[in-house]
Amino acid sequence: MRIAIAQLNIHIGNFDSNTEKILNAVRSAREQGAELVCFSELATTGYPALDLLESPHFIQKSNELLERLKEASSGIGIVIGAPRINPELPGKNLYNSAFFFANGQQLGFADKALLPTYDVFDEYRYFEPGKKFNTIEFKGKRIALTICEDIWDLVNEDPIYTFHPMDELMKDKPDLAINISASPFSEGQHRNRKKVLKMNAERYKLPFFYINHVGAQTDLIFDGGSLVVGPSGEVQDEMPFFEECVRTYELDEIMKMDGISKLQSTDRIALMHDALVFGLRDFFVKLGFKKAIMGLSGGIDSALTAALTCRALGAKNVHGLIMPSEFSSKNSVRDAEKLVENLGMSSDILDIGDIYDLFTSKLDAFFGKTPFDVTEENIQARARGILLMAYSNKLGHVLLNTTNKSEMAVGYGTLYGDLCGSLSVIGDVYKTDVYKLSNYINREEEIIPRSTIVKPPSAELKPDQKDSDSLPDYDLLDPILKMMIEKKYSMEQIASEGYNSEVVQKVWQLVHRSEFKRYQTAPVLRVSDKAFGYGRRIPLVGKF
Amino acid sequence: MRIAIAQLNIHIGNFDSNTEKILNAVRSAREQGAELVCFSELATTGYPALDLLESPHFIQKSNELLERLKEASSGIGIVIGAPRINPELPGKNLYNSAFFFANGQQLGFADKALLPTYDVFDEYRYFEPGKKFNTIEFKGKRIALTICEDIWDLVNEDPIYTFHPMDELMKDKPDLAINISASPFSEGQHRNRKKVLKMNAERYKLPFFYINHVGAQTDLIFDGGSLVVGPSGEVQDEMPFFEECVRTYELDEIMKMDGISKLQSTDRIALMHDALVFGLRDFFVKLGFKKAIMGLSGGIDSALTAALTCRALGAKNVHGLIMPSEFSSKNSVRDAEKLVENLGMSSDILDIGDIYDLFTSKLDAFFGKTPFDVTEENIQARARGILLMAYSNKLGHVLLNTTNKSEMAVGYGTLYGDLCGSLSVIGDVYKTDVYKLSNYINREEEIIPRSTIVKPPSAELKPDQKDSDSLPDYDLLDPILKMMIEKKYSMEQIASEGYNSEVVQKVWQLVHRSEFKRYQTAPVLRVSDKAFGYGRRIPLVGKF
Repeated sequence: MRIAIAQLNIHIGNFDSNTEKILNAVRSAREQGAELVCFSELATTGYPALDLLESPHFIQKSNELLERLKEASSGIGIVIGAPRINPELPGKNLYNSAFFFANGQQLGFADKALLPTYDVFDEYRYFEPGKKFNTIEFKGKRIALTICEDIWDLVNEDPIYTFHPMDELMKDKPDLAINISASPFSEGQHRNRKKVLKMNAERYKLPFFYINHVGAQTDLIFDGGSLVVGPSGEVQDEMPFFEECVRTYELDEIMKMDGISKLQSTDRIALMHDALVFGLRDFFVKLGFKKAIMGLSGGIDSALTAALTCRALGAKNVHGLIMPSEFSSKNSVRDAEKLVENLGMSSDILDIGDIYDLFTSKLDAFFGKTPFDVTEENIQARARGILLMAYSNKLGHVLLNTTNKSEMAVGYGTLYGDLCGSLSVIGDVYKTDVYKLSNYINREEEIIPRSTIVKPPSAELKPDQKDSDSLPDYDLLDPILKMMIEKKYSMEQIASEGYNSEVVQKVWQLVHRSEFKRYQTAPVLRVSDKAFGYGRRIPLVGKF
Repeated sequence: MRIAIAQLNIHIGNFDSNTEKILNAVRSAREQGAELVCFSELATTGYPALDLLESPHFIQKSNELLERLKEASSGIGIVIGAPRINPELPGKNLYNSAFFFANGQQLGFADKALLPTYDVFDEYRYFEPGKKFNTIEFKGKRIALTICEDIWDLVNEDPIYTFHPMDELMKDKPDLAINISASPFSEGQHRNRKKVLKMNAERYKLPFFYINHVGAQTDLIFDGGSLVVGPSGEVQDEMPFFEECVRTYELDEIMKMDGISKLQSTDRIALMHDALVFGLRDFFVKLGFKKAIMGLSGGIDSALTAALTCRALGAKNVHGLIMPSEFSSKNSVRDAEKLVENLGMSSDILDIGDIYDLFTSKLDAFFGKTPFDVTEENIQARARGILLMAYSNKLGHVLLNTTNKSEMAVGYGTLYGDLCGSLSVIGDVYKTDVYKLSNYINREEEIIPRSTIVKPPSAELKPDQKDSDSLPDYDLLDPILKMMIEKKYSMEQIASEGYNSEVVQKVWQLVHRSEFKRYQTAPVLRVSDKAFGYGRRIPLVGKF
């Protein structure tokens, strides 16, 4: 049997264009001689459709798309993920299901049984867990059909669920397994996927066809990398990352091969780079925008953001504002200009000195003589925010946020100032990785000026300011933040790893005290296992 | 048996003060002659603790508090909600449980079986559903102990769950039922609660003691109103709304009485008023802040916000900034000043004309001669945002957001401008209710100037601007928004209710296109069944 995998980028809510894209993929699979074509999880709606799933008319549109696919299944089998209305309440209104069409009929369906409800996943909010497990017979083969999480609990050291859906399906003695997924990128996730597929193939002695979604939805980047794994666990093919692709496999060959010799490059920093560029591009494509703007300080965060954006959108669509104040060094403007030149993007210079003076003199009348403090620092950041948003409003450029994860964690940023922006490009990238990404971008030629990379980090909001005046060095800060955010260690646990308790306590307090800022900042492109945003929900409690 | 209900305000993460408060309530119950004292759901941690529940050291602190309570249970029974570590993985790490202590021992526990995972609730994210149901015997009485949602499915027209935990418990022939809850305020929720309790008491022919949490956590306002209901369904007592209270009941009397003659006032607008004042006050108390600031435009939204804030914090803790531009009418400043005088709060006037001129003239050099558009409107709103935040930074006042729900729905507000603020006070109040609340505040004397109430709404960001230039009248807009947001109607359904399809389509698009603004606005005090924020999750998809 010839089986095609259609790794597609679905645009939530745009049923017309999605229908066309899916039908085109069916056509393309047919042309490749496929007898069965498989799409990813919830491919009719896109993932995550969130509360749109609660709108009956949204589900109706998904059902209309399913009808079209059923009709299109003459002479070819089609597996596709879609919500299925629960016909037997009580329970949630929907199942997260895989439909199987062939010859204009529905051959069967499978409901997702294990519903991830952690981190960025909220599937119990919308779906009833599946409780029935039957293989589907097609062209003489019994197919075990599962959905994403259904096959994942094997890799968890502490299992989350009480059973494995594949164990149930094995009673029917399947000939092959298909798993349709929507598994977002994070560093290392491609390794987890291969491990999961390998463990399943070995345990069940079956070939696995694993279809992943590709495409970004705001903060989540689905990286593709769909897999075909032979019955003894070897990866037989890995589809490209960050690209749509329809590719057909002969089942008999998959049963015989012993694995491909060379997988795609999985260098951590290279993949993170590609993910950010892809996520950024798809954000613009899906919202119908073309042009971006950002502030350029001469520092490394805005330089990296600009470089990634030029790759995503093309330099001609990227504009930078260089907005020095009296506290900016000459070198900063020079570094920003050098970057603009290297990237071939456009820029303007707007000195904010007069704006700053006007605000502070106006406020002096009310505050009296008070010492320079964070108020004056923030006025500069917020004046820049106004100028950037004015460009955005007048010229239609989308403002991008340039804050890194380390800063965002400790609240080292001005709300409504440098925290402005529709999307945070590197808000899930620790400062130490900002350096690595910058060096990666410079690996063949100097794009981000070397002086930007080597100078000590500074917000330049007061005389001779350095990040290190108020924060530990990033080499020390980042591991503490990782333990706190990713590993949920207590202060005592972090200190027991050899870190100074006073430093740990200070970082701990900075993170908790700045939760209110993160309540109001842009969505963050997610590249780690625990990004700020939807997948991390900390109450505003003052202290803990 | 004498049973006390302790309706307390728990501060998430502040285990020391919570422990003291809970032990004091035990003491107070003892003094009232109680043999059993009952606390609300997850009373050791507060609700919702969100992802803090994933931190082992957070759970450890809760367990330490449970140990203290066990020790304190000599001579008195104690029922309290707390997370219980799941001793038998696989499964989630925790149960959402009720512990029963007496005489220094743990008599038993109950695990919540029905886990709400919709709207603002995410309980499947953290908890394993309970699967065992046993009553607990204490002083010769068998007690059926359940947690919040466990008794709620009776009122759902379409049941969500497959069984009722109380049905399971009835096999033990209980003498009374206790339900511990954390049920947040929304208009009408007090009625739902009484209906739930009545239906349960009637169905199971048991007296019910229903203990609710009181206190606000950011957007969620827990209103108390704990209930004691006799075995034939009559409410025997309703504890106060928005107040802590420890009150003791004699079970024998509860079995005999036929209901109280007079419940608390439940006027919709009066309750909404009290909820907002309470939510606002508790936000400040819990975060350790005293003083608030807001912009005063002379319009009704900022006037209502100021009036509510003066009630919550005392007028001496509230400061307003009046920031006219060339587009402000003289009357606006006069109305704002009148409001300040009526409320007894303080204010400053800062004309933003020079700031506006500086920004626009600076930008003209780059934009060239372009027509006045939303850019210039937003510059005014954002200049005001800078001034307000400067006050906040310099003087420690917390900036409050003054946007109403109708505006927030259609995106009629400037991101980083009038959408600034740490908390949105009336962001869940439709404009038509803003008028009703204002009239309620004025019911005895004119506090919000009458001229503010009667003039046509305007943002005053361009010459002779009126809200009605770009929006339908609020009497028309609000019902459309309610159908769209609260009822999830499609455009066709709304039109079929008798609304012009073009108007409906326009509103529909405005709501969807402004999702990105709501991603970045302040938490909103929740007073409806579907507020913007955590309980409403719409992806950024451009259109749907």
